[in-house]
Amino acid sequence: MALFTPQEALDYHALGRKGKLEVVPTKPCITQKHLSMAYTPGVALACKEIEKDIEAVYEYTNKANLVAVISNGTAVLGLGNIGPEAGKPVMEGKGVLFKIFADIDVYDINLRVNDPEKLIEIVKSMEPTFGGINLEDIKAPECFYIEKKLIEEMEIPVFHDDQHGTAIISGAGLLNALEIEGKRIEDVKVIVSGAGAAAIACCRFYVSLGLKKENIFMFDSKGLLHKDRPDLNEFKLEFAQDKDYGSMAEVIRGADVFVGLSVKGILKPEMVKSMGKSPIIFAMANPDPEIEFEVAKEVRPDCIMATGRSDYPNQVNNVSGFPFIFRGALDVHAKKINEEMKRAAARALADLAKEPVPQDVLDAYGLKELEFGPDYIIPKPLDLRILEWEAPAVAKAAIDSGVARKNLNIDSYREQLKTRLKASRKRMAEFIASYNLGF
Amino acid sequence: MALFTPQEALDYHALGRKGKLEVVPTKPCITQKHLSMAYTPGVALACKEIEKDIEAVYEYTNKANLVAVISNGTAVLGLGNIGPEAGKPVMEGKGVLFKIFADIDVYDINLRVNDPEKLIEIVKSMEPTFGGINLEDIKAPECFYIEKKLIEEMEIPVFHDDQHGTAIISGAGLLNALEIEGKRIEDVKVIVSGAGAAAIACCRFYVSLGLKKENIFMFDSKGLLHKDRPDLNEFKLEFAQDKDYGSMAEVIRGADVFVGLSVKGILKPEMVKSMGKSPIIFAMANPDPEIEFEVAKEVRPDCIMATGRSDYPNQVNNVSGFPFIFRGALDVHAKKINEEMKRAAARALADLAKEPVPQDVLDAYGLKELEFGPDYIIPKPLDLRILEWEAPAVAKAAIDSGVARKNLNIDSYREQLKTRLKASRKRMAEFIASYNLGF
Repeated sequence: MALFTPQEALDYHALGRKGKLEVVPTKPCITQKHLSMAYTPGVALACKEIEKDIEAVYEYTNKANLVAVISNGTAVLGLGNIGPEAGKPVMEGKGVLFKIFADIDVYDINLRVNDPEKLIEIVKSMEPTFGGINLEDIKAPECFYIEKKLIEEMEIPVFHDDQHGTAIISGAGLLNALEIEGKRIEDVKVIVSGAGAAAIACCRFYVSLGLKKENIFMFDSKGLLHKDRPDLNEFKLEFAQDKDYGSMAEVIRGADVFVGLSVKGILKPEMVKSMGKSPIIFAMANPDPEIEFEVAKEVRPDCIMATGRSDYPNQVNNVSGFPFIFRGALDVHAKKINEEMKRAAARALADLAKEPVPQDVLDAYGLKELEFGPDYIIPKPLDLRILEWEAPAVAKAAIDSGVARKNLNIDSYREQLKTRLKASRKRMAEFIASYNLGF
Repeated sequence: MALFTPQEALDYHALGRKGKLEVVPTKPCITQKHLSMAYTPGVALACKEIEKDIEAVYEYTNKANLVAVISNGTAVLGLGNIGPEAGKPVMEGKGVLFKIFADIDVYDINLRVNDPEKLIEIVKSMEPTFGGINLEDIKAPECFYIEKKLIEEMEIPVFHDDQHGTAIISGAGLLNALEIEGKRIEDVKVIVSGAGAAAIACCRFYVSLGLKKENIFMFDSKGLLHKDRPDLNEFKLEFAQDKDYGSMAEVIRGADVFVGLSVKGILKPEMVKSMGKSPIIFAMANPDPEIEFEVAKEVRPDCIMATGRSDYPNQVNNVSGFPFIFRGALDVHAKKINEEMKRAAARALADLAKEPVPQDVLDAYGLKELEFGPDYIIPKPLDLRILEWEAPAVAKAAIDSGVARKNLNIDSYREQLKTRLKASRKRMAEFIASYNLGF
């Protein structure tokens, strides 16, 4: 069933140029004239312009299009605290995705640092270099504090994708699932399995979309989060119920939504059976969901199901978020990625799923048709239209909410994006092809 | 006389893709199969290999070919403390040079940090990401301490180019100038104008090549460095004479060598006139040397003169050092760039200047001929043979001095380098041409 063999995946990293990212000049630099503009003495003219007006750094350097993917390797994928070196392939991979989906340049920065205060100081010091900071694979609960502090203290967007990525994409799916079932987000009861960074961020985001906090029942490995438990940190306390309502099997009866960010197999068929009418089941544990797609559908054919997997309908994949959210944020020189921008991203995704699906997307997935409904509530990750829908929505929200430092005509911006990505992919494809690797 | 107009230099930075560096994937990543090898789940295989054996980070990531160009913007070119944003065009430019001359990938990291201890901590934390660290444009005297500490505490090469670059290239020129004149480095008297990072590093390096410390007379803006001056820091004290021997005009009488790393016009014609037989004059202040080439030659037709300028003979240009020194160091996974490696670099450059100059180098400079002698003691910066001469010499010195973690067959390595740079330049030229910028 796997798309590749283990050796192929290792070769993909080691053959040809080692690793997955290369840095290339953007201007010709062969002649003495080129070199004397790229470096001394010509470069001094650009330096002086920035010294006069610091905003000119967006004009004369690559800061305007440069994101740092920063990790300390303490919570890498499902692999845990494997350290910054072992995390580097993931961070380079994130850079590949930023580039392929949104033409954003990434420096992956893998840091040997565990103390949150030191990590904060280090990331802050890099502000002059980057247009935005994508925090990645930093373990909970430190990640909450680190991101919050950096957002407060930096003048460029800081975004911890492990938190908000899943929140935004699943949030989009949730809006559409509820719409299909004619339910209001304000009314639904939600069971959450898992209380890590992604689970907490999902709940915060759903609340920002209208969900009532008292309707959230969150479970960690020890059971329901409730106020009488002495072992909860401040982040878990945020979603603690007033008292112990019992086990997941008890509490899930009649619930509308299950959100899983925990481990394989934790959601039992009998639990699903006990849920309310047309239950919404987002079983997002990776690579194996909290309940198998087929099992859930068999017990409750009326359910709407999403997973993290590409081989089932409704894949919740962060790649439908971060490249486009940063694209929009960078292009208006946003100071932050705020709630308005995240909600705009989710709504843009939700709206796009209602549009007719073009042939190239169907082809990419070997599908005959795809129509808005229980098996298609989120756009497919390889749908290139996401760029045109999500990035302008985020840019507009940044402008409207007052965190943009630069204005944009959103309509012409949308058009430019389309052309730009096509050209960028073509250039890259030719460049990469010249390595003759044959993948 | 200038090769470009100010507007051209600004356009070079701002037109097309802003800035001078772009990050591009090295592997195809269009299909779902590609993406699942580049990122989850396939990437986990590479992560696990590195978790098992940390040296595998050189196999599965771009660390093996990645250098950080790190600056805090406190001493940028001749512009001074203009800050990390205004310094960024220079650091990107350095990245361009690393790439064009040695196919090394650079992330430029511009840090807002002044405290040396904090800067050290930040750079150390980045060790997992990079194969080497090039410190740049950090002001003296802090730069000495920062580099020393980082070299001690890091397991990858750390190299402050402002110190050693000029030292190595001018050291190569000095060896050849002395050879032409039949003088021994152990015997010559050297006057040094300037006592900044480059001047101190030059003197340290010349001593490592055989110069006697007591034969060095170093001047700062207040006069000769000597032990009775209460205002000298530990680095200046290193080259302080035992007593005050007088002004530069007095001390320079009969001297063999003048090394200028100070300011325009400080070396007067009458001083040059008073120097010993066939004086060696390295007037490296930029862009205007301590004495004009024509003036020095008029007063002393027997002198050998070098400057920092490309429009006169014997340009001392750091670009003939750092790309190749790092190339050699990276390719044997060197833990340091030590004195042996620096001396090997200088000797390789000195030796290359004695070889016949190929037509393409003559063409690049519009020259009819170029022969080893007073007007050609250092290879031309655009001479692509430098790669094949210097990088293998550095790699060999690393192996011989015990700081290499990887062995190499030096002869076949030299051949590979040639082919590799040609291919890399061709790929890049095509990639850049697709932007249609017309520079």
